[in-house]
Amino acid sequence: MLLLHRTVVLGLRQACRLKSTPSKLCIQACSTNDSFQPQPLSLTSGDNCGTRRWKVMGTLLGLGAVLAYHDHQCRASQESPRTYTKEEVSSHNTPETRIWVTLGSEVFDVTEFVDLHPGGPSKLMLAAGGPLEPFWALYAVHNQSHVRELLAQYKIGELDPEDKAAPTLETSDPYADDPMRHPALKVNSQRPFNAEPPAELLTENYITPNPIFFTRNHLPVPNLDPDTYRLHVVGASVSQSLCLSLDDLYKFPKHEITVTLQCAGNRRSEMTRVKEVKGLEWRIGAISTARWAGARLCDVLAQAGHQLSETDAHVCFEGLDSDPTGTAYGASIPLARAMDPEAEVLLAYEMNGQPLPRDHGFPVRVVVPGVVGGRHVKWLGRVSVEPEESYSHWQRRDYKGFSPSVDWDTVDFDSAPSIQELPVQSAITEPQDGETVESGEVTVKGYAWSGGGRAVIRVDVSLDGGLTWQAAELHGDEQRPRKAWAWRLWQLQAPVPAGQKELNIVCKAVDDSYNVQPDTVAPIWNLRGVLSNAWHRVHVYVAP
Amino acid sequence: MLLLHRTVVLGLRQACRLKSTPSKLCIQACSTNDSFQPQPLSLTSGDNCGTRRWKVMGTLLGLGAVLAYHDHQCRASQESPRTYTKEEVSSHNTPETRIWVTLGSEVFDVTEFVDLHPGGPSKLMLAAGGPLEPFWALYAVHNQSHVRELLAQYKIGELDPEDKAAPTLETSDPYADDPMRHPALKVNSQRPFNAEPPAELLTENYITPNPIFFTRNHLPVPNLDPDTYRLHVVGASVSQSLCLSLDDLYKFPKHEITVTLQCAGNRRSEMTRVKEVKGLEWRIGAISTARWAGARLCDVLAQAGHQLSETDAHVCFEGLDSDPTGTAYGASIPLARAMDPEAEVLLAYEMNGQPLPRDHGFPVRVVVPGVVGGRHVKWLGRVSVEPEESYSHWQRRDYKGFSPSVDWDTVDFDSAPSIQELPVQSAITEPQDGETVESGEVTVKGYAWSGGGRAVIRVDVSLDGGLTWQAAELHGDEQRPRKAWAWRLWQLQAPVPAGQKELNIVCKAVDDSYNVQPDTVAPIWNLRGVLSNAWHRVHVYVAP
Repeated sequence: MLLLHRTVVLGLRQACRLKSTPSKLCIQACSTNDSFQPQPLSLTSGDNCGTRRWKVMGTLLGLGAVLAYHDHQCRASQESPRTYTKEEVSSHNTPETRIWVTLGSEVFDVTEFVDLHPGGPSKLMLAAGGPLEPFWALYAVHNQSHVRELLAQYKIGELDPEDKAAPTLETSDPYADDPMRHPALKVNSQRPFNAEPPAELLTENYITPNPIFFTRNHLPVPNLDPDTYRLHVVGASVSQSLCLSLDDLYKFPKHEITVTLQCAGNRRSEMTRVKEVKGLEWRIGAISTARWAGARLCDVLAQAGHQLSETDAHVCFEGLDSDPTGTAYGASIPLARAMDPEAEVLLAYEMNGQPLPRDHGFPVRVVVPGVVGGRHVKWLGRVSVEPEESYSHWQRRDYKGFSPSVDWDTVDFDSAPSIQELPVQSAITEPQDGETVESGEVTVKGYAWSGGGRAVIRVDVSLDGGLTWQAAELHGDEQRPRKAWAWRLWQLQAPVPAGQKELNIVCKAVDDSYNVQPDTVAPIWNLRGVLSNAWHRVHVYVAP
Repeated sequence: MLLLHRTVVLGLRQACRLKSTPSKLCIQACSTNDSFQPQPLSLTSGDNCGTRRWKVMGTLLGLGAVLAYHDHQCRASQESPRTYTKEEVSSHNTPETRIWVTLGSEVFDVTEFVDLHPGGPSKLMLAAGGPLEPFWALYAVHNQSHVRELLAQYKIGELDPEDKAAPTLETSDPYADDPMRHPALKVNSQRPFNAEPPAELLTENYITPNPIFFTRNHLPVPNLDPDTYRLHVVGASVSQSLCLSLDDLYKFPKHEITVTLQCAGNRRSEMTRVKEVKGLEWRIGAISTARWAGARLCDVLAQAGHQLSETDAHVCFEGLDSDPTGTAYGASIPLARAMDPEAEVLLAYEMNGQPLPRDHGFPVRVVVPGVVGGRHVKWLGRVSVEPEESYSHWQRRDYKGFSPSVDWDTVDFDSAPSIQELPVQSAITEPQDGETVESGEVTVKGYAWSGGGRAVIRVDVSLDGGLTWQAAELHGDEQRPRKAWAWRLWQLQAPVPAGQKELNIVCKAVDDSYNVQPDTVAPIWNLRGVLSNAWHRVHVYVAP
C-alpha cells in the first residue's frame, strides 16, 4: 500500500507538471465502433496477483490523473470536427510524429499522456497509430467513465466516414478473405498469417485472450459455414463412418480443459543467431494458453467403431485449408494417445468460452494436450485411423529434430521421429532485452511449460548469467499429476546487487521428470530451427 | 579383416618375444570350483556387434598365442604343488608384486600374459589377486580347451585347502550375513553394500549379467526363506487383504519385461567436483539393465479390491530390510501408475531368468519401469494403498531435486516433489578419462536412457568438447512407443583429427520428447547430488 501511495503521488505530480501543456480539442460523446466486438476478458480467479495489483494501481492512478486534470478539461467544440483517414492516423505512431489513437470514430492525440499512462508508456505505445479497442478489451480496467473522460480531453477529430468501409476483397489473392487481426500481434508473416503477442502481454494473463493468442497458419484461412460444416470420421468399417454436423458434435459429452499450445518454432530467432535456419523468426511468443471445450476424440473414435487393439496405428487429421493444388494441411498422432481418455485429446469447438475464432480453426480444431502445436489441426475436415503416420509434408518432412551436424544436403527426414511431446521450456517476458531497470529491486516475469503433461516444478532465475540462482515464485492453476497441460507463470523480485550497471538475467525450468533446459543454443541448433529451449537470457542495464 | 590380421601378427610377435621369459610351473588338470556357479551369459541376439567382433578376434588371438607358445609348454610337476592362502593371492595384484589369479583351486601367475590378453590388459587386470571365474562367466569365449591349456602354463600352485571354508559369521555385525559379491564390482560402500560395475564392463552386454548389476542397499541384506516368505497386500476392505506366498504370486499371469534401473545418485561424483554433496560417490555405473519377470502389480491390487477411482492415492511399499530400530526401507508410487497395465509395474521374482539374487531383493522386489531405482523396493514385505505418499525417510526427506542455491540450512524437503521419472541420461564407457587412444580412428561407446518410457532417439558425440557433433550408432532392442523402459547402447567410430594430441570427448542424448541433457553440472548441482545428467565428458590423449 505504501508503494501504491508513492506511485499515485508521483503520478499526480507528473500530471501537475503537464498542466501547462496546450489543451487538446475534445468532444463529450464517446461512440463505440460497432464493427469491433470487444472480447470479454477471461481471467481465471486468483491466477495472477500481479495483474490484480496493476488493476488497483491503474484505477487509483487513473483517478489521480482525472483529479489533476479537472481544471484542464475543455468543452466540446461547437464547430464540425476535423476528419482524418485511417492512413493518416497510422502515420502518427512516434513521439516525433505525435502519437494518435482512435476509439470508435474519434481520433485522439495522446502524445502528452503517454508518460502518464498508469499501465506504463510501453503498453499504450502498442496502440500508437491505431484503435484502442483491442487493448481496452484486454484491460477491462479501461471500461470506466473517468477513463473515457480523461481520454476526451485529447480528442482532435473524427475518422473520415468514407474510411470506415471494409477493405475491398481482392479475389485474386487467396489470403484476401483472411480475418482481421488484433493490432498488438507482432507479425512474422502476413501470408500465411503468423504472429505472436508481444512478450509484455504474454504473461499478463494466465489465460491468453483470444485476440492475442499466437497464430500459426500454413495456408489461407478457410471461411466455413457452421450450418453446412461436416466432419468426416472414417469408421473401423465402412458402415461405421461418421459425417458429423456441429450439432452432432455438440451431442458428445462436452469436455473442457486448459491447455498451452506451443509452436515447434517458438524462440527460433535465438537459433538464427547461431547459424541461419529455415523458418519464421518467432521470438518467445509462439506459445499461448486457452480454455478449450469440445468432444473427446476417444468418444468420437469409439462411436466410429475404433478400438485400441490397433496399437501401432495413428490417427490422421486433415484440415479444410488447402494450397492451390488442393493439398490440405495434415498431421497425425499415435492412436494410443487418441484413445486414452486420460490424454484428453479434444475436437474443440470453443476457445475461452466462445466459438473458435477463424484464425484458430473455426468451427472445429484438434487440441492434443502436451503435444506440439503442429498436430492441433485447425478447420478439421477429416479424421481417419491409419497403419502409418500422416503422409503430410508437415508430419514427415518438417517438425523433426536433428543433430547440429545435419544440413540440408545431408538431412534424412526418415531418420528422426516426428515431434509429438515437447521438451521443458521457459522464457523471460519482463524485463526485455536491452531495457533499463531501476536500481534497488528488479522484477523478473515469465512463463514455463513442459510437454506430455509434465508439470513445471521449479524455475531458477539468475541475475549473473548463470553463476548463482534463485527459485522464482510460481503462479497459475495447480497442476494435475500427469495432466499438467498448461503453463505456469512465474515471477521473481530480487534486489539488484549494489554497484551493478548491467544484469545478465537467465531463466531455466525443471519439470516433474526433472528434465531441465540446456545451457546454450548452439549444441541444440538444427536446420529447421525447432525445439529451441536453451536457457532464456536477457541483458538489461541498471538505471544509475 | 586386415585389422584382425595385423593384430594376430602383432600378438604372435609379442608372444615370440616372451619365449625367453622363465617358464612357469603348470599342471594339466583344471578342476572347477564347485562353490562358484557360473552365470549363463544372457545376450540378446544381435545386440552388440562390437562384442561379436571381439569374440572373433579373441578366438583368433588366443589360438595364435597357443601356437606361439607350443614349444614353451612344460609338463606337470611331479612334486606336490605349493599352496597359497587367498590373502597371499590377493596381495599379488600389480605388475610390481606380480599378478596372480585363481581358477578353481589353482593359482596362476599371469604377469607375463597380461599384455597378451586378447581382451586387453585392463580386462584381465580386473581379476588381479582374485578368481577368474566371475569374469569367465561374463566372457563365454574363455570356456574353450585351448584357453585352459594356455592358462595351465602359468600355474604356480594350489590354494590352501583350509582357506576354502566360508568366512566365519560375526553375529554382532548386522552385515555379517550379506551375500558374497562379484569381485569386479567397484565398491562405494561396504556397509550397506553399494557398488557399480566398472565402466568398461557396463556396456559389454545389453543385458547386465546379475553378478555385476549395480547394487544399491540402504540396510543389511535380509536372509529370507522362500518357503515361509509372505507378501502382505492391504485390501480395499479388511476382508480383501492378501497374504501371498511365493506360490500364490506365481499363480498370477507371469509378465516379463526388459527394464533399466538407475539410481538417483548415478554420476554423483561429477557433482562433487563442483561442490561437496551428501551421498555415495557413484561414477557412471549406478545403472544396469535386466530382464525381469513377475506378477503385474495392477493384477495383485485388483485382486485386493483396489480400483483407480482413488486418483490421488499412492501405493506404499515396505521392504523386509530394517535398521536396528526396526524401521524398514520404504517408498511409494502414484496409484495411477500402479494401476495402469501399460505402465507394467511388476512384483518381480526373476531377474535374467533366475530367481532374484539376494542383493537384488530375493525373493520379491518391485520393478517400476521408467522410474528412479529408489522406488523399486527390494525384499518386499508389504503393499498398501494410502491417501498420501510413503512417510519413509527415502520418500520424503531424500531423493528430491533442489535449486543450486539451496543448502542444508535452507532446504525444505516438502517444497520439492519426490523423484519418480528420471530425466534423459547418457555416459561414455569407452575410452575412459585419462586413457591414451590410438591415432587414426577412435571408438567411443556408451549408454543412453530416459525415464517415463521415453525412447532415446539420438546420441550426439563430440571429440572437441562440444563444438562439433556426430550422431552415434544406436544398438539394443527396438523401443516400444511410450514403453521404452530399457537403455540403448551406442557407438561411434570416428577419425581422430590429424595432429590432435588430446581429445575432449562429450556425449549427450535426446529422447522422444526431444528433451536433452544440460551442458554443464554446476547449474544442476544440488545438495543431495542427485539427477546428475549433464553432458558426460572424458579427456583422453592421442598416441603419437
